[in-house]
Amino acid sequence: MQALKEAIVSKGQTIEPGIIKVDSFLNHRLDSKLLFKLGEAFALRFGKEAPDLILTIESSGIALAVATAHALHDIPVIFAKKSKAFNQSPDMAEEMIYSFTHRDHCVIRVDLRYLYKGSKVLIIDDFLANGEAVKGLMAIIKKADANLVGIGIAIEKGFQQGGSQLRALGLPLLSLAVIDEISDGNILFRNTDGEI
Amino acid sequence: MQALKEAIVSKGQTIEPGIIKVDSFLNHRLDSKLLFKLGEAFALRFGKEAPDLILTIESSGIALAVATAHALHDIPVIFAKKSKAFNQSPDMAEEMIYSFTHRDHCVIRVDLRYLYKGSKVLIIDDFLANGEAVKGLMAIIKKADANLVGIGIAIEKGFQQGGSQLRALGLPLLSLAVIDEISDGNILFRNTDGEI
Repeated sequence: MQALKEAIVSKGQTIEPGIIKVDSFLNHRLDSKLLFKLGEAFALRFGKEAPDLILTIESSGIALAVATAHALHDIPVIFAKKSKAFNQSPDMAEEMIYSFTHRDHCVIRVDLRYLYKGSKVLIIDDFLANGEAVKGLMAIIKKADANLVGIGIAIEKGFQQGGSQLRALGLPLLSLAVIDEISDGNILFRNTDGEI
Repeated sequence: MQALKEAIVSKGQTIEPGIIKVDSFLNHRLDSKLLFKLGEAFALRFGKEAPDLILTIESSGIALAVATAHALHDIPVIFAKKSKAFNQSPDMAEEMIYSFTHRDHCVIRVDLRYLYKGSKVLIIDDFLANGEAVKGLMAIIKKADANLVGIGIAIEKGFQQGGSQLRALGLPLLSLAVIDEISDGNILFRNTDGEI
């Protein structure tokens, strides 16, 4: 998606090899105009699958999930929680994942009372690197006996393995920008067919 | 706001005295239709102040902030971070607050490169109890030499002191539902004048 690529190039920070920070528009300060455009792009691709729920992970996936939900006529969103609340529900499904940002393992939790059996779930997240978060969410969808109908990612790091693994499984994955290389401050995007 | 009060009564869980869980529609599963209605209510109240930025705290404030930003013609959002990233900016303003949910202190962080001097900031959050989060955000706004133009809260716990303290300071606070008492599963709302 051209608008996203332009934002990455003009506002992203390549602070070290393989790392791009998008704090200025996607996961600390949010460019709401761009955010709702991303949501519309996901709705355009996955609307025909008629998802009835969006699943994401706190915190940085929430804004994108809400914008996508709005473009899909305000379907509900569930965000997996990372911290254990004092008054946590006993119905939480838990999965251990590795967070690339924090360089540590963490547990993600979804209350299965809200993820109904048979529901058609669209996963939305801001980044796809090694695919740990998406695989954790997929495991939770399986526990709930619900169905995955799509995976929408803003920025895929094509030089890590998550995207290729998910595609090899035949999963319906749309990444709005795929970065194949970050080096010396240069960002090389993959040419993607049928681009929105 | 009637729709919010109805959701609290029909879907909220009063698990112990003084505690109400709204995981089923406001801070784990998100009722997107209601969320965007809440955003419109904040826009109706604070639009005339012409805010150019919304400030909130991860995670549970993000969805409401994004919905409100959309109703205000997609102004940007900043969400204060609670966890320290591996690659954190050196320009972070930090404030220590006490989290009622987690019953522990935590540090909230905002990158001052994105909170411009003189900007007109609307604070949005899901809950107001003792007002720790709002006061922390206000301290950060002050550090940035920006201006607070309003505070929009979904659910105020009127039996805790945050709301009355902020009103005593003459701050422009709108709480869409004020709960004065939770006991034996009953929820008593405050009658608020000029209700939306």
